[in-house]
Amino acid sequence: MSAIIIDGKKIASEVKGELEGRIGKLREKNIFPYLVAILVGENPASVQYVNMKAKACTKIGIKSRVISFPEKLGEGELLELIEELNADKLVHGILVQLPLPNQIDQLKINLAVDVSKDVDGFHPENLGRLLLGKPNFIPATPLGILELLSRSGNSPVGKHTIVLGRGDLVGRPFSVLVSLKDKRANSTVTLCHSATRNLNHFTKQADILICAMGKARMITGDMIMPGAVIIDAGTSAVNDPSTEKGIRIVGDVDFDSVSEVAGFITPVPGGVGPMTIAMLLSNTVKAAEQINGICND
Amino acid sequence: MSAIIIDGKKIASEVKGELEGRIGKLREKNIFPYLVAILVGENPASVQYVNMKAKACTKIGIKSRVISFPEKLGEGELLELIEELNADKLVHGILVQLPLPNQIDQLKINLAVDVSKDVDGFHPENLGRLLLGKPNFIPATPLGILELLSRSGNSPVGKHTIVLGRGDLVGRPFSVLVSLKDKRANSTVTLCHSATRNLNHFTKQADILICAMGKARMITGDMIMPGAVIIDAGTSAVNDPSTEKGIRIVGDVDFDSVSEVAGFITPVPGGVGPMTIAMLLSNTVKAAEQINGICND
Repeated sequence: MSAIIIDGKKIASEVKGELEGRIGKLREKNIFPYLVAILVGENPASVQYVNMKAKACTKIGIKSRVISFPEKLGEGELLELIEELNADKLVHGILVQLPLPNQIDQLKINLAVDVSKDVDGFHPENLGRLLLGKPNFIPATPLGILELLSRSGNSPVGKHTIVLGRGDLVGRPFSVLVSLKDKRANSTVTLCHSATRNLNHFTKQADILICAMGKARMITGDMIMPGAVIIDAGTSAVNDPSTEKGIRIVGDVDFDSVSEVAGFITPVPGGVGPMTIAMLLSNTVKAAEQINGICND
Repeated sequence: MSAIIIDGKKIASEVKGELEGRIGKLREKNIFPYLVAILVGENPASVQYVNMKAKACTKIGIKSRVISFPEKLGEGELLELIEELNADKLVHGILVQLPLPNQIDQLKINLAVDVSKDVDGFHPENLGRLLLGKPNFIPATPLGILELLSRSGNSPVGKHTIVLGRGDLVGRPFSVLVSLKDKRANSTVTLCHSATRNLNHFTKQADILICAMGKARMITGDMIMPGAVIIDAGTSAVNDPSTEKGIRIVGDVDFDSVSEVAGFITPVPGGVGPMTIAMLLSNTVKAAEQINGICND
C-alpha cells in the first residue's frame, strides 16, 4: 500500500460546512432552502439513496420532503406533480430519483423539471450549457469528482484524464466538465467505453483515471501508471458471506493491487459517494440563492 | 502523395440528391421546406456563408430568406423577430449566423429559437440531448464530418479518434457525437486543446484525426500515424500575393507533408465545408418533416 487515500467523507464535510454558512445567510433573509425528492417504486437502492439525501439535507438545515409513488405510477401523474412543484415558490430543488419504471419516458421527465430548480442537472438545457462551457447546474457526481480532485491537491489542469464509462450520470458529463477551459478543469481527456479496443493501452497513459463502468474490481494494479490518481465512481454488489446481508458494495477498482501502484486513490465506500450527496446539497443552496437573486459564483 | 482524397463536394452531392427525393415527397403533400437565416452586421465571411447557404437551399428546392440587420441591432429586436419566426407555421428552420455583435448575448439567442426549428443544433436543449445520446438536431459541421467518415468507408467504430480543438461549433460537439453508442460512432475519443501538453504524443496515436483548431497548417506529416484518416475542419486566411485578393484559405493541416503519410485526407476547400452546408439542408428537411409529423430516421 503506497497510495494516499482521498477521504471523500472528510472533503464532503468541508463542503457541507461551507454550505451551512450560506444557508445561515439565507435564513437571515427568511429564505429556507427546500428540496423535494420524488421516488417511484420500491427499488431498495433507490429508497436508500433518497433517504440518505433527505437526511443529509436535514443535517445542514435544508428542508426536504420525499414524495413516494407505487411502481405503476402513470407518466401524466408524474408530469402533473412536477408542474405543481415548478410553480411552488417555496420549492427550490426538484429531484426525480432514477431509474424510473419503463412506462415513464425519462427524457420527458427531465425536460419537465424547471431548469432553475434542476438540482440534479439532468435537464437537457443544463447539460447543453455544460457542453457549451457555460454550465449552471452540473450533475452531482461529476461535480463531486472535480471537487475531490481540486481539494485533494490533484488539479487536472494540463493532465491527461482518462474516463472509463460513457454513462449519462457520471462518465460522459465528467468527460466534458474536466475538459472545459476553466482554471479547475482544462484537462486533455480520453473517453473509453465498451467498444474501446486494448483498454490497457489507454489506462496506462492516465495521469488521472476516472472509473465509472460499474464493473466490480475490473481495474487492477498492472493496468495503471505508477503514481496515477485513481477515482472510483463504481458501485457493484458482490457476494460476501461474511456480511449480514451476504453482499458487499465494491468499486470498479481492485483496491488492493491498485493502491500498491497509484499515487492517490478513493475508497469505496467513502470516496465519490459522500461527494455526490454534498454536491446535491450545494446545487440546492445555489438554486435557493439564484431564485432569490443572490449570486455566489 | 499517397493519401486518398476524401471528396467533400462529391459526398455532399450524394446527400443533396437524397434530400431532393425527400423534398419531392413533401411537395406532394403541399409542404415546402423553408429556412430563414438572420444576419447581423456585415462581417464579409458571414455575408458569404449566409449567401452560400441560401443559394444551396434554392438549388435543391428549399425556400429560403435572408433577413439582414445593421451591426448595432438591439438584443430585444432580435428576440422579437425570433419569436415571430417561431410562431410562423410556414417557417421550418431558423438560423442565426454567428458570430453576433457583443451587445447580443449568444446564449440567450440560442435559447430563444424554437427547439423544433433549431436546424443549427445550437439550442442548449438540442446539445443536451446530444450529450444524453438522444440527439435530434446535431450541429451541421460535426454531423457532416460523421457523414464524411462513414460515406468514405472510414467508420470510426472501435477506432481511436482524436479531436484537436474544443470549440462549440465543431470540436467539442464532434467529440461527443463520435463517442455515442451508435453503429456509426462508437469511437474511443481524445479531446486535445490549447492546454494539452506534448500534442505530438496524442496526434501520433490517432486512427482518425479531426483538426478543428483554426491554426493555419499546424499539423505536419511528422505528427501523424502512417495510414491515418485526416479530417481538416480548419479555415484560416493566409497571405498569398499570387491571388487576386492577396489571401488564400488554408486548413489546420499542412496538406503537402500530411498527404505523404496519411491514408485518407480531406482538402481545404472542398472537404468539410460542403458537408456543413449539406447537413444544414438535411436538418431543414428533417425539421419540415418532423413539424408535419413525418419521421424519416
